[in-house]
Amino acid sequence: MADWEWDHQDAAAYLEHNPFMKYNHMEIEKISPELSEVQIEVGRDARNLMGMVHGGLLYALADAVAGITARADGRKYVTQSAHINFIRNISEGTVTAKGILVRRGRSITIIRVPVTDKEGRLLAEVTVDMFCIE
Amino acid sequence: MADWEWDHQDAAAYLEHNPFMKYNHMEIEKISPELSEVQIEVGRDARNLMGMVHGGLLYALADAVAGITARADGRKYVTQSAHINFIRNISEGTVTAKGILVRRGRSITIIRVPVTDKEGRLLAEVTVDMFCIE
Amino acid sequence: MADWEWDHQDAAAYLEHNPFMKYNHMEIEKISPELSEVQIEVGRDARNLMGMVHGGLLYALADAVAGITARADGRKYVTQSAHINFIRNISEGTVTAKGILVRRGRSITIIRVPVTDKEGRLLAEVTVDMFCIE
Amino acid sequence: MADWEWDHQDAAAYLEHNPFMKYNHMEIEKISPELSEVQIEVGRDARNLMGMVHGGLLYALADAVAGITARADGRKYVTQSAHINFIRNISEGTVTAKGILVRRGRSITIIRVPVTDKEGRLLAEVTVDMFCIE
Repeated sequence: MADWEWDHQDAAAYLEHNPFMKYNHMEIEKISPELSEVQIEVGRDARNLMGMVHGGLLYALADAVAGITARADGRKYVTQSAHINFIRNISEGTVTAKGILVRRGRSITIIRVPVTDKEGRLLAEVTVDMFCIE
Repeated sequence: MADWEWDHQDAAAYLEHNPFMKYNHMEIEKISPELSEVQIEVGRDARNLMGMVHGGLLYALADAVAGITARADGRKYVTQSAHINFIRNISEGTVTAKGILVRRGRSITIIRVPVTDKEGRLLAEVTVDMFCIE
Repeated sequence: MADWEWDHQDAAAYLEHNPFMKYNHMEIEKISPELSEVQIEVGRDARNLMGMVHGGLLYALADAVAGITARADGRKYVTQSAHINFIRNISEGTVTAKGILVRRGRSITIIRVPVTDKEGRLLAEVTVDMFCIE
Repeated sequence: MADWEWDHQDAAAYLEHNPFMKYNHMEIEKISPELSEVQIEVGRDARNLMGMVHGGLLYALADAVAGITARADGRKYVTQSAHINFIRNISEGTVTAKGILVRRGRSITIIRVPVTDKEGRLLAEVTVDMFCIE
């Protein structure tokens, strides 16, 4: 991020500079400082021991969308801490993580991230605290 | 996991049945009900916007090793909730997540997971609550 | 709770059996398995070093209302884990904690608790996992 | 805290300026920027519905000792976020919360707080993130 300036609507460029997101087949559906959206289509690479979406990937989607929501104000952020509750899980279909702004402070921005399936059922509920590094 | 019985020392079989872990290049270094260990060598697929390890992957390592530590008692578990603090980050080298048993209950098992670099410096500190489903 | 059966609408009896809540001047405004409400009027005993409401009390309100919301289904629960984000604080006035049911499971019930001042401004955002012990 | 300067070894003065701690019978056993200690003798005012220590008070002890540990470096802090796991509980005796420094950053200081009974058995495990406001 050092020498690259993000045009805050360019989802393709963001993914291009974020190898982990791209490698894990994440797609950016919406970018805004109040509400962003990231999703995946569940494939083999997403699955855990039980054939469901790996909890690490559910969290990663939430972390990714929280970062996008925070950074959509044009500043630089890192994740400070997060809490995740796992509620139910699926073995195929679409998983959507919505980053909803709770509070944007000078240093700390708090984002709540419901992670849902295609029918809108809650798979996980995440809270992410982002720390502004500029 | 339904029709497959895990021999609790067989790391290769565990990875074979856990596509997300394998796809993200995780290696199981140690399996025990008190202390397990998972690690990655940081490559391009692990990196975020800033060229450091993606927070989602740091959490995923912790979730994975917590699952292995919990399941090493022969029972079946899912992750119930987790909390993660990010402390510092690296752009290359080895990342190790150690699952340390805090308390094994009838239903809930709590595992603390320090995530460190090769020099043992703390990258993240994670607490994972696993729920026994049998 | 052992030999006492709670009539799930009797706020006064609940407080009578819950000395910590009563001692800290908590009042139960609403009891329901989907949405309960607990509040305090900020007095001297509630304040911290800076003359604001002590963070421990803000959490205690959330824990108390989560317990009431969970137990309003007639079952017995203990708190399993919780996460709290502190957002802003006040030195006087009314503080209200609302327990909003996110998911009621067989073992785990998840309750989200916004803690607000009289004007509805968010002071803290809490997630509480309650564990059913029967 | 505005017009009062804390002499970092004066436990009595700290309690005098912290009405919530004093009202809830907390005692400061040890003050240091690496490891502080707060405790209570469990009395009637500390108990919940089941006659055990109220979860809100267990958290409050942890929040209090985290604040003392953070502030023992001479700077001013507020609690940013916290995570608590409840493990077992008691109905009488001494409860001790130890604030152990995990990492002191420029803005964020992370403190881990094991809460134990007299025999050293873990009642709760807490992580507190303090934010430096100067």
